[in-house]
Amino acid sequence: MPTPEELMRIAIDRAREGLARGQSPFGCAIALGDEIVAACHNRVFLTTDITAHAEVTALREACSHTGEITLEGALVATTCEPCPMCMSALHWARVDRVYYGATIADAQAAGFNELTIPARSVLDLGGSEVTLVPGVLEAECRALFEEWKGSAAARAY
Amino acid sequence: MPTPEELMRIAIDRAREGLARGQSPFGCAIALGDEIVAACHNRVFLTTDITAHAEVTALREACSHTGEITLEGALVATTCEPCPMCMSALHWARVDRVYYGATIADAQAAGFNELTIPARSVLDLGGSEVTLVPGVLEAECRALFEEWKGSAAARAY
Repeated sequence: MPTPEELMRIAIDRAREGLARGQSPFGCAIALGDEIVAACHNRVFLTTDITAHAEVTALREACSHTGEITLEGALVATTCEPCPMCMSALHWARVDRVYYGATIADAQAAGFNELTIPARSVLDLGGSEVTLVPGVLEAECRALFEEWKGSAAARAY
Repeated sequence: MPTPEELMRIAIDRAREGLARGQSPFGCAIALGDEIVAACHNRVFLTTDITAHAEVTALREACSHTGEITLEGALVATTCEPCPMCMSALHWARVDRVYYGATIADAQAAGFNELTIPARSVLDLGGSEVTLVPGVLEAECRALFEEWKGSAAARAY
């Protein structure tokens, strides 16, 4: 089973791949036991799909890979605190644990529109049992926003 | 531009098509001006994709159809109050107005697991300007759950 930091490094690598493809700087990786069942960057611009955040994209890939609609026991690392869409999707998938690095406030500071509902609040208000762990490689995850700010895609955003 | 009831009837028809295909009883239709740009039922079981709720599926179809990641001015009818994933996705898409019929409580009563966060709360907590209109063909939408309860898919759920 990967450590939180190992899983997050995969998510960070994917976010950086996305940046190189003109995508916004978000990445997500999902592990089931020792296997990485999905690792994706945000694909909203690439696929013209407003729902294609990194977490939603990774969940779709994980469901496709496993042939199951739920991912009990899954560990998830996402470079930024999940938005309410993604946090809810992770709940629906019944993942066990979600690690994140940067925060919704960091994303806002980088110029992204945000629904300002902390992921913790989505879980608490909704009665979810998903475990949420902030602060995993936070500085490295936050640095992705600096890379984004210097990108051509950010200037067009 | 369709009336709320006209748009909802399309959503209900799609939910019923989904039921006939063994899917859960949720439908969603999206209009831009006079054009119906998407009309979908829930496809979670059909596509092995936990994120494929009716609204998310319709948003993807609408983005694909229009070639745009946002749908300013769009009207949306969904047979059930959007879950936090779907309500947030509708916000990200910048739709103008969301009509719904049945409620999250109705879905719970029909046996669906739910994140018990009212769609209204997601918008209020998140600072969203999407207009939310409950009670559109509510009885007809709620009746879909009765049809679901008698289906083979419901017995396997």
